Amino acid sequence: MTAMTAPISRFPVPAVDELPDDMRERIEQVVEKTGFVPNVFLALAHRPDEWRAFFAYHDALMEKEGGLSQAERQLIVVATSAANECLYCVVAHGAVARIRSRNPLIADQVATDYRKADLTERQKAMLGFAVKLARDPVDVGEADLDDLRRHGFSNEDIWDIGAITAFYALSNRMAHLLAMRPNEEFFLMGRVPKGSGNSAPA
Amino acid sequence: MTAMTAPISRFPVPAVDELPDDMRERIEQVVEKTGFVPNVFLALAHRPDEWRAFFAYHDALMEKEGGLSQAERQLIVVATSAANECLYCVVAHGAVARIRSRNPLIADQVATDYRKADLTERQKAMLGFAVKLARDPVDVGEADLDDLRRHGFSNEDIWDIGAITAFYALSNRMAHLLAMRPNEEFFLMGRVPKGSGNSAPA
Amino acid sequence: MTAMTAPISRFPVPAVDELPDDMRERIEQVVEKTGFVPNVFLALAHRPDEWRAFFAYHDALMEKEGGLSQAERQLIVVATSAANECLYCVVAHGAVARIRSRNPLIADQVATDYRKADLTERQKAMLGFAVKLARDPVDVGEADLDDLRRHGFSNEDIWDIGAITAFYALSNRMAHLLAMRPNEEFFLMGRVPKGSGNSAPA
Amino acid sequence: MTAMTAPISRFPVPAVDELPDDMRERIEQVVEKTGFVPNVFLALAHRPDEWRAFFAYHDALMEKEGGLSQAERQLIVVATSAANECLYCVVAHGAVARIRSRNPLIADQVATDYRKADLTERQKAMLGFAVKLARDPVDVGEADLDDLRRHGFSNEDIWDIGAITAFYALSNRMAHLLAMRPNEEFFLMGRVPKGSGNSAPA
Amino acid sequence: MTAMTAPISRFPVPAVDELPDDMRERIEQVVEKTGFVPNVFLALAHRPDEWRAFFAYHDALMEKEGGLSQAERQLIVVATSAANECLYCVVAHGAVARIRSRNPLIADQVATDYRKADLTERQKAMLGFAVKLARDPVDVGEADLDDLRRHGFSNEDIWDIGAITAFYALSNRMAHLLAMRPNEEFFLMGRVPKGSGNSAPA
Amino acid sequence: MTAMTAPISRFPVPAVDELPDDMRERIEQVVEKTGFVPNVFLALAHRPDEWRAFFAYHDALMEKEGGLSQAERQLIVVATSAANECLYCVVAHGAVARIRSRNPLIADQVATDYRKADLTERQKAMLGFAVKLARDPVDVGEADLDDLRRHGFSNEDIWDIGAITAFYALSNRMAHLLAMRPNEEFFLMGRVPKGSGNSAPA
Repeated sequence: MTAMTAPISRFPVPAVDELPDDMRERIEQVVEKTGFVPNVFLALAHRPDEWRAFFAYHDALMEKEGGLSQAERQLIVVATSAANECLYCVVAHGAVARIRSRNPLIADQVATDYRKADLTERQKAMLGFAVKLARDPVDVGEADLDDLRRHGFSNEDIWDIGAITAFYALSNRMAHLLAMRPNEEFFLMGRVPKGSGNSAPA
Repeated sequence: MTAMTAPISRFPVPAVDELPDDMRERIEQVVEKTGFVPNVFLALAHRPDEWRAFFAYHDALMEKEGGLSQAERQLIVVATSAANECLYCVVAHGAVARIRSRNPLIADQVATDYRKADLTERQKAMLGFAVKLARDPVDVGEADLDDLRRHGFSNEDIWDIGAITAFYALSNRMAHLLAMRPNEEFFLMGRVPKGSGNSAPA
Repeated sequence: MTAMTAPISRFPVPAVDELPDDMRERIEQVVEKTGFVPNVFLALAHRPDEWRAFFAYHDALMEKEGGLSQAERQLIVVATSAANECLYCVVAHGAVARIRSRNPLIADQVATDYRKADLTERQKAMLGFAVKLARDPVDVGEADLDDLRRHGFSNEDIWDIGAITAFYALSNRMAHLLAMRPNEEFFLMGRVPKGSGNSAPA
Repeated sequence: MTAMTAPISRFPVPAVDELPDDMRERIEQVVEKTGFVPNVFLALAHRPDEWRAFFAYHDALMEKEGGLSQAERQLIVVATSAANECLYCVVAHGAVARIRSRNPLIADQVATDYRKADLTERQKAMLGFAVKLARDPVDVGEADLDDLRRHGFSNEDIWDIGAITAFYALSNRMAHLLAMRPNEEFFLMGRVPKGSGNSAPA
Repeated sequence: MTAMTAPISRFPVPAVDELPDDMRERIEQVVEKTGFVPNVFLALAHRPDEWRAFFAYHDALMEKEGGLSQAERQLIVVATSAANECLYCVVAHGAVARIRSRNPLIADQVATDYRKADLTERQKAMLGFAVKLARDPVDVGEADLDDLRRHGFSNEDIWDIGAITAFYALSNRMAHLLAMRPNEEFFLMGRVPKGSGNSAPA
Repeated sequence: MTAMTAPISRFPVPAVDELPDDMRERIEQVVEKTGFVPNVFLALAHRPDEWRAFFAYHDALMEKEGGLSQAERQLIVVATSAANECLYCVVAHGAVARIRSRNPLIADQVATDYRKADLTERQKAMLGFAVKLARDPVDVGEADLDDLRRHGFSNEDIWDIGAITAFYALSNRMAHLLAMRPNEEFFLMGRVPKGSGNSAPA
């Protein structure tokens, strides 16, 4: 009895060269930067309109300027995806978080227990808010927003924290629905000092 | 001591005539059909790029053809939003569900306990799957998909059920983050035989 | 495949004219006031002694004078029954709550998320206490009672809030055991300005 | 710092001789049988109408004939009250359960883990159903009733199991609201072979 | 249909006289003090090396000097084992807790609801911490330790509270794995004034 | 505001050369094999008697022969420690699991979602049992053991799975109590093909 390597999705996965031009071009940009096609780009491509909306939403939240650093955005994804036990998102965004923060330990720390990670109190408050919104959204109230404000977050930052959490609530559920498999490359990215300068947008 | 009527969002809400043309046009189409601007169109407009992705995603899932009826799609939203105790989505989509199903009782039934609603066993299986993916996504496995297949759902139907659930996992969390307030008009829509022929897309 | 309309109870339901005089008279009074027989009066009548104790308890709590308004008593029932996902109680008492409060929106708000309903802080504290006693009774301690006192509730008010919650903990479980079906009339009661002057005691 | 012995209720407790005749007579009957006044008779007497309904309901369920033995009825109370961590009900009804079953071990077994108690599979199914209705009433469905039927329970037995569970859902919450203290006499009743022939109705 | 008395373990149970000398001697000491062999000594003896480590750990925590009294150590076991619904540990350590505290009521109180037991505020804080570490260890943070310090516990006391809780997290799981049955003698120990002077080390 | 690197324990940590000979010798053996002192050996050394019992228990379970492979034993630790969100154990035993299984991906897969890891159905059943015993020990019953037997596990294997889970229920709680910090070396061990031949016994 040997373990089978699972396919990247429970649903049909199109080949890149069968995709419409706009999708293919976007994917080629990612390959240029990362060196491979992250599986989410292929697995979700089964539904082109949803794919386009998904990545438009992703880019609107993850590639904008603002009070949160690129690394902090990725850590929100790691912490909330770990709360949802989402293999694809923890592994893929853990890789990006390591690269963006230039810290090879931070993703594993945050994925397991952000309360004990090497973070500032402000960052732990940010992740505490995100995990609460991910798990028990009805319990998020004005007092929680005030707590973030006391840690120096602006209202726009709070929207960012909440909106990233909300987007990955969607993304985690799609990954569980599809049993989406993370690329093997992600597991080692950003762990060793050199040769880890690449980054993955998803 | 009197109860205050809450604003429609904790964050700034733009006026419709300040919005970019594409957003304003889309909103005007909704008003034509529904008779008023559902608050979600205004509250999310604080972030135009996210707004565009949100409604593109919504339309890709809720206005497509497929094995699920329009009413069934709305009931998935009602059941999973009730699991998240999301006031805006239960009230707004409850209204649309009543209209699409021409059943004035179904939304309240599904919002409180879909297991005892006037639905077929097939529809209850659909909502059971959706609520499980909404609440405990990691527990959704191949056996759950097989159960839906036994009830006659195709793989494309299953993607639809899961993707609608995933999208409203996002939407519910945005509504809680913003403390988004449903329009009063929704509460009565579709409850009385005549004059309820309007529908709201969100 | 069509949805079947469920019977009003899983157990035998007696006809009104088979019932002992005291039960029949009480039911006739309700019909006079409400215009129909709420199903709880029929479904529980399968066991006359339990029926008598149930309605005696109900009247002792719901029709007494005291610091809580009639509308507030009904909202406690709606909020705690929603926490128990009890279709009969949410629908029937939601109707009465709308009528007693002359507010067509309040029942749907409280049933979905009382924290965001159009209520005073004092009323939200009342419902927060009730939902905690409904869900996690062991966690209710002296500090929770003190919190209600700070909001101006007397000790007798606190007993009322707790006792109503406790009585509907019983009622919700009977409704789930019997799969008790709410009368269709309740769904619309109190939603439209005129013709909604009737009320139902249970 | 020494531990204070708590009063029997957070609310005012009337003296027996101040009570109306019907209540006093009922209490005197209990004393004759049990040798002392169980605190629930005093603590709830603060509200005579609720007291009367409470004990009428209790007697309708606990002192009737039927397919469940007296001991089994008490074990339902012990198991569901333990699920609610209700000190008064576990201790008082544990005492009665020991006496009715002539088994000095059974109450502690059921209060801690009914699955490993010295019971038949039929009795474990009964307690499993009761604890499910106590904790997660919405999850009780037709399949659970069928399971009881397979163990030989009639529909009237099922009503009894459910109604006793529902009544103690009320009782447990009143005990937590009042911080009701069990009489010391209950702790030892039914544990030693002789001198334990008395019984307490609540 | 009669209830079967369960064996003391699901796994093979060696006879005392088959055991290695060091184990047999230790067991004989217990018998001398207690009057019988507590089943845990037999059930775990199926694996001698684990047995030796288990009792060495037990003795290091439960028989050392320190700021916690012998009775308090036993109450930590009772409260956390009740949280885990562990029949063996609640019954056996409840017996020892009664003897060590010379209080025939305290074990039943703590096993059902330590918040309402006859304990000091300091002792309730100790048990609150222990139950939190037993149930939700990730939520235990510096603020919880500070709370214990405010109640006068030293850092060494805090280690003791936590380590006893951790050891019985192991013990409770072994008891559930083995379906370990408590000796009948434990149920009555320490309940009656005389003849209860014996004690059991596990 | 910069993140502080946390100390390895909240409690005092002795220096290796202050330790009794038996402890120091054991630690030196580990260093010889692993290249560094895993922090658990230092953090627990604050209490030498507990330290000795802890490692004796560890060795009895983790270094014995039996039906479970060395890699499988480590995966049980990773899966149950992830269920408890225990940073030290997930990181340290994740490293050992990678080495023992010669699989650089398996630890991250199991720590996030063992259901989707590259494992056989038999191994998933093993981890499902372990996680159930870790989280909800009272729910583990004969049917769960039968399920393992159907997957080919012997009774001795089942004891091993359960006992490892039970031991790490203790270990995880000590790690949370101490806020134990994993050595940085663990994060990369076993991830890159060469130079990863070392192993850590804890």
